[in-house]
Amino acid sequence: MSERIWTAALVVIGDEILSGRTQDKNVAQLASWLNVQGIRLAEVRIVPDVEAAIVEAVNALRVRNDYLFTTGGIGPTHDDITVDAIAAALGVSVVVHPEARAVLEDHYQSRGGLTDSRLRMARVPEGASLIPNRMSGAPGIRFGNVFILAGVPHITAGMLDALTGTLEGGLPVLSRTVGAWVAESEIADLLRETERAHAGVSIGSYPFFRDGRTGANFVVRATEQVLVDTTIAALAEGLLAAGREAVEGGI
Amino acid sequence: MSERIWTAALVVIGDEILSGRTQDKNVAQLASWLNVQGIRLAEVRIVPDVEAAIVEAVNALRVRNDYLFTTGGIGPTHDDITVDAIAAALGVSVVVHPEARAVLEDHYQSRGGLTDSRLRMARVPEGASLIPNRMSGAPGIRFGNVFILAGVPHITAGMLDALTGTLEGGLPVLSRTVGAWVAESEIADLLRETERAHAGVSIGSYPFFRDGRTGANFVVRATEQVLVDTTIAALAEGLLAAGREAVEGGI
Repeated sequence: MSERIWTAALVVIGDEILSGRTQDKNVAQLASWLNVQGIRLAEVRIVPDVEAAIVEAVNALRVRNDYLFTTGGIGPTHDDITVDAIAAALGVSVVVHPEARAVLEDHYQSRGGLTDSRLRMARVPEGASLIPNRMSGAPGIRFGNVFILAGVPHITAGMLDALTGTLEGGLPVLSRTVGAWVAESEIADLLRETERAHAGVSIGSYPFFRDGRTGANFVVRATEQVLVDTTIAALAEGLLAAGREAVEGGI
Repeated sequence: MSERIWTAALVVIGDEILSGRTQDKNVAQLASWLNVQGIRLAEVRIVPDVEAAIVEAVNALRVRNDYLFTTGGIGPTHDDITVDAIAAALGVSVVVHPEARAVLEDHYQSRGGLTDSRLRMARVPEGASLIPNRMSGAPGIRFGNVFILAGVPHITAGMLDALTGTLEGGLPVLSRTVGAWVAESEIADLLRETERAHAGVSIGSYPFFRDGRTGANFVVRATEQVLVDTTIAALAEGLLAAGREAVEGGI
């Protein structure tokens, strides 16, 4: 019986990532969070703050994945066009969400009041619901299988916390890592054969160079713990036969 | 007269990025390098180690950008399928490149010799040329406007060094940053109006929360230094009028 695989895609909206100014952290953060929900991050696109680019990416990815997330572009300034672009992609209007407005009124009561710019952050695609934001005022937005999150990583994290356990997924993907001081080219056959011998397992090989020495970490992934453990044992044995020690947890 | 804008796209090939195991560094690295070449990073896709996904991304992006880069998946192991996938996307065969073979023979002479696994790294789409790799043995690959680079960031960096100055581009995008201890929502109008008043300039607003205080950095980008400087001056003046000090270089 084959397990249904749940997938998500991410559209990162951000000139600041594409310009090289900011190092994205949301891909890794969302991926790790999704793993725990039993959902696989299947693809990511990073697009500029341009409506047509956002619309294209959102529409391509939301239909072929169970969930689509976006990060970035939901603040109060002129370059924050995510809500308008996603409403255009969904073919709905943009409206002020009364609950979001109330949240912002409350948040800004002691901070100079709700100006027009700040009210922009209460705008949602018509029919959307809100995702709580415990870190700052403006909420995230959910519309069907589309989740519109903040771009600032700790705010994104808070929104993901709020979503924890609310999305349907499959079995979490389990993984275990061993490392060895070995060139991956020396044991490529071992990796290929070990993966082939264990159906349902994927083995990733991640080489590195450190202190002038060559090594690699091997990540074994499967949805069953016993399968992960058996594969790790076979790999460690093969490494030992090649005169190398497998270091649990990686190097 | 409008300046011709040169664009590049990047396809990151990597289950390790999508699984959350590894934090990508090549997007920021390539973006910064491209800026200096006068080329804009227009879009990025992160795809799994799956041939159909690589083919789709490569074919979508190589035709609508001046240059297409890929990172990852060119090592010696079973999960390194980039060359085969890109050859399939380009509709050409995979062949062993004689010069790459010679490079690898030399590199592995004192490291146990050129095994079948290692010879995999000499395979290229038929008709491709090589990109020197000063860091480790296996070269990068160029085929027309497609550049196939390593995934390990310091090896990627060496390959980019080798390409510096060889690609045609436009004027480099110049930028200058000022920061202020201000909520971006307080000065959203100032940002919008300052951008409107300076044609050819883009202003990015990047909020942060630090030590319990709200601030934002504002990045002004244009291809002419005088335009950048004039805009920064206008922005600093506007911030001052709002009772805030602009900190050169950002906070």
